[in-house]
Amino acid sequence: MENNNYQQLTRTFQRLSRFSHLSSIASWDMFTMMPPGGSAARGEALAELSVLQHQILTDKKVGEWLDAAQSENLNDVEQANLREMQRHYQQASLLPEALVEAKSLAGSKCEHAWRTQRPANDWQGFSANLKEVVKLSREEARLRAEAKGCTPYDALLDIFEPDMTSARLDVLFADLKSWLPQLLAQVVEKQAQQSFVPPQGPFPIATQRELGLETMTMLGFDFNGGRLDVSAHPFCGGVPEDVRITTRYDEEDLLSALFGVVHETGHARYEQNLPRTWQGQPVALARSTAIHESQSLFFEMQLGRSNAFLKKLLPAVHQRFGSQAAFSEENFIAWNQRVKPGYIRVDADEVSYPAHVVLRYEIERALINGDIEVDDIPALWDEKMQAWLGLSTKDNYRNGCMQDIHWTDGGFGYFPSYTLGAMYAAQLFHAARNALPGLDSAIAEGDFSALFDWLRQNIWQHGSRFSTSQLIQQATGEDLNSAYFRQHLTSRYL
Amino acid sequence: MENNNYQQLTRTFQRLSRFSHLSSIASWDMFTMMPPGGSAARGEALAELSVLQHQILTDKKVGEWLDAAQSENLNDVEQANLREMQRHYQQASLLPEALVEAKSLAGSKCEHAWRTQRPANDWQGFSANLKEVVKLSREEARLRAEAKGCTPYDALLDIFEPDMTSARLDVLFADLKSWLPQLLAQVVEKQAQQSFVPPQGPFPIATQRELGLETMTMLGFDFNGGRLDVSAHPFCGGVPEDVRITTRYDEEDLLSALFGVVHETGHARYEQNLPRTWQGQPVALARSTAIHESQSLFFEMQLGRSNAFLKKLLPAVHQRFGSQAAFSEENFIAWNQRVKPGYIRVDADEVSYPAHVVLRYEIERALINGDIEVDDIPALWDEKMQAWLGLSTKDNYRNGCMQDIHWTDGGFGYFPSYTLGAMYAAQLFHAARNALPGLDSAIAEGDFSALFDWLRQNIWQHGSRFSTSQLIQQATGEDLNSAYFRQHLTSRYL
Repeated sequence: MENNNYQQLTRTFQRLSRFSHLSSIASWDMFTMMPPGGSAARGEALAELSVLQHQILTDKKVGEWLDAAQSENLNDVEQANLREMQRHYQQASLLPEALVEAKSLAGSKCEHAWRTQRPANDWQGFSANLKEVVKLSREEARLRAEAKGCTPYDALLDIFEPDMTSARLDVLFADLKSWLPQLLAQVVEKQAQQSFVPPQGPFPIATQRELGLETMTMLGFDFNGGRLDVSAHPFCGGVPEDVRITTRYDEEDLLSALFGVVHETGHARYEQNLPRTWQGQPVALARSTAIHESQSLFFEMQLGRSNAFLKKLLPAVHQRFGSQAAFSEENFIAWNQRVKPGYIRVDADEVSYPAHVVLRYEIERALINGDIEVDDIPALWDEKMQAWLGLSTKDNYRNGCMQDIHWTDGGFGYFPSYTLGAMYAAQLFHAARNALPGLDSAIAEGDFSALFDWLRQNIWQHGSRFSTSQLIQQATGEDLNSAYFRQHLTSRYL
Repeated sequence: MENNNYQQLTRTFQRLSRFSHLSSIASWDMFTMMPPGGSAARGEALAELSVLQHQILTDKKVGEWLDAAQSENLNDVEQANLREMQRHYQQASLLPEALVEAKSLAGSKCEHAWRTQRPANDWQGFSANLKEVVKLSREEARLRAEAKGCTPYDALLDIFEPDMTSARLDVLFADLKSWLPQLLAQVVEKQAQQSFVPPQGPFPIATQRELGLETMTMLGFDFNGGRLDVSAHPFCGGVPEDVRITTRYDEEDLLSALFGVVHETGHARYEQNLPRTWQGQPVALARSTAIHESQSLFFEMQLGRSNAFLKKLLPAVHQRFGSQAAFSEENFIAWNQRVKPGYIRVDADEVSYPAHVVLRYEIERALINGDIEVDDIPALWDEKMQAWLGLSTKDNYRNGCMQDIHWTDGGFGYFPSYTLGAMYAAQLFHAARNALPGLDSAIAEGDFSALFDWLRQNIWQHGSRFSTSQLIQQATGEDLNSAYFRQHLTSRYL
């Protein structure tokens, strides 16, 4: 056979994909269904599978097949698939097993202790564990950087955003910093003149769930291949054939669960529309975390919080929760477009969100590259928070650098994806509007089919066939830049 | 190390146990949570894992370790564990992979077609598929019988009930046949004099679920390590640390879901109380399908449908569903102890149930041993059904030999477990009553703790440490016999 090595690889990766299926479903179950007593056994079972997956992926034969397949006769998609296989193989085989295990243990320890350290504002205790995590992450970054020939931080960035560099991020984020703080200040000043009527609960959870399901249906979620459930931290999990999204309900707060559902539905539709013909192969997977985030923010921010969409959503809200003053058209829109800079990233609106991300990016880059130490974090956090949002986090670790768990497991390099996603989303929405005459009036009529078809054609169906740059250039005619995000924020909020 | 081979085995079986964990949870999910679109991918993922498990278990090294471990210095529990390892290894390694695969395919095909063939009463279509299943099961039985030196049917029986033989079953069932048909006739005649008030629905499903949960709590189910959900066919799944039971609700029928829950809670408490110190090892697994069934029938029939338990249950029923005439104490007891011989096994009461089992046992034994052919089944079924229950199934395949799916996947040898379980349950309850003075009054007061402690001491905590015979002799002072089952039925129904 002329592409015998490539065929061996596709069989191996299909097998890995099937094991990933089981791992995804068991993880989803862990966060949604599992009673506490199942935790230890589940952790051991998942770890055992993870060891197996690592062994299969890093087998010497896989490396040999990858080398030999380079000279086989492969079509475009197969070449893209081979490139992705190579990437997965290299990422997995670069690290010695002892380091992977040590990192996993240090991460679990740090995250577990964080649960009580955060409420106690215990920076001393937390930083001791974090130092171990950072030490191991630096070692990981060093090994990856040596192989790739780049800086340590860029080597971690590449795991989440292939081909993204901090040089490029610096340009993109410098641009953001040149206009966003002023825009934010203007929006805050403008909104200070407005009056808002907050929605009055309670909003029964069963009814909130119905509204969420109806909204998912409006947004084209395929319930034949997915579910909506509850978890402490909302996520989109499962597998492309069976996508599991979650939300969390608060009886006093209707909109956080609802827009959480809209956000996760964006992730879900990407997964549900990944190419089925290459099923089980790396080329059929989502392109990157930033492109994934761009889809959820496209749904939540570009579409979901637009005036037109909010108007279409309102009758369903009235039908279930009556027509209190907060649910007048004007107030409903205004309330969903409030901008309120605050300490907590996950509660942030889309105007102040980038502040949280750029702040963390700058700190984690310096940390991984060895320019600062863990002990330097609180002062830097306070300084940057003051500069961006005028908020002090001095001695307030729990609402500062201890507010979330992204760093506890060594997930350095992930944070930029959030703001890259917001910029991609704005650029994609702009391109869709150019490509689709009458889009705005279609949306106002509740017809999103052309918009979703455009996403399917331009993003979803390609999986990982193209690089992120190619993908975005083909879809929008240019590479990523922040102009459309600025344009979007200006037109919506000023 | 003095027991190095044994240690290798324990590591291998622990690994297998972790993979079984994932397989159990993914299977549970398939029956309770999974949307239809996930079906094909899930099937492939589970099959891939099953191939892996088979490879690990039948690895040549496992055979070598098993041989070498025989002469190592092992304590009692380790020896029992080694015996169980040996049993798993032999069962798995006896069959060529091609036969396992062919059987799995033929079973899926037969079961899938059955779903439309049963409503259409299509025996011709069904029997064509069943012939293939029987052919492959006979081949399996032949291979197992050769290795074990027994008849083909006994070799299949041994998978579910280690050490049980058809010679022994013939004695036990001949005894049943000597008294049960007459007892059944007497009960039917006696109950014909009684009047019953059927409960009037609708009984809202959410309230039925609450009652089920309260009943599980009464029965000691540990919700820290388990759940109650819904599936088309009720089952007890999951893992000992996280036991997942299911039921199905009918708005018009309160009691079928409720007693389904009681039944599955019996299975669940066995699983939840298996020995944790040997976790992940074969010796920590449940003894056999008949012992498992004995625990569910102990809960459902011995305890659950007793006058004392029904009286304790009634206030919870009143609290949720009011006090209609059917819920008078007298009628509630009578209704839950009705005996109504019918065509369908899964709807049968405990007096007529053995008829369904013995009938199938006699047919499947003859079929596997080659004494009859698939074409002979309907006539035999009709003849035996007439003899036991006075019901004709001539041309009524859908309520005769096509009523359930036990045979479609080649599960021959399983059926006897149901009636063995009923006999074990009666014998165990009798022994518990002897061992625990004041048991009846404790039950009447709703205090089941002594009873459950007795089960824990005598059955649950032993896992597979002893053979079924040893286990039952230690618990009751004698080997299995049908006297206590007869005594139980006589005292409850005559």
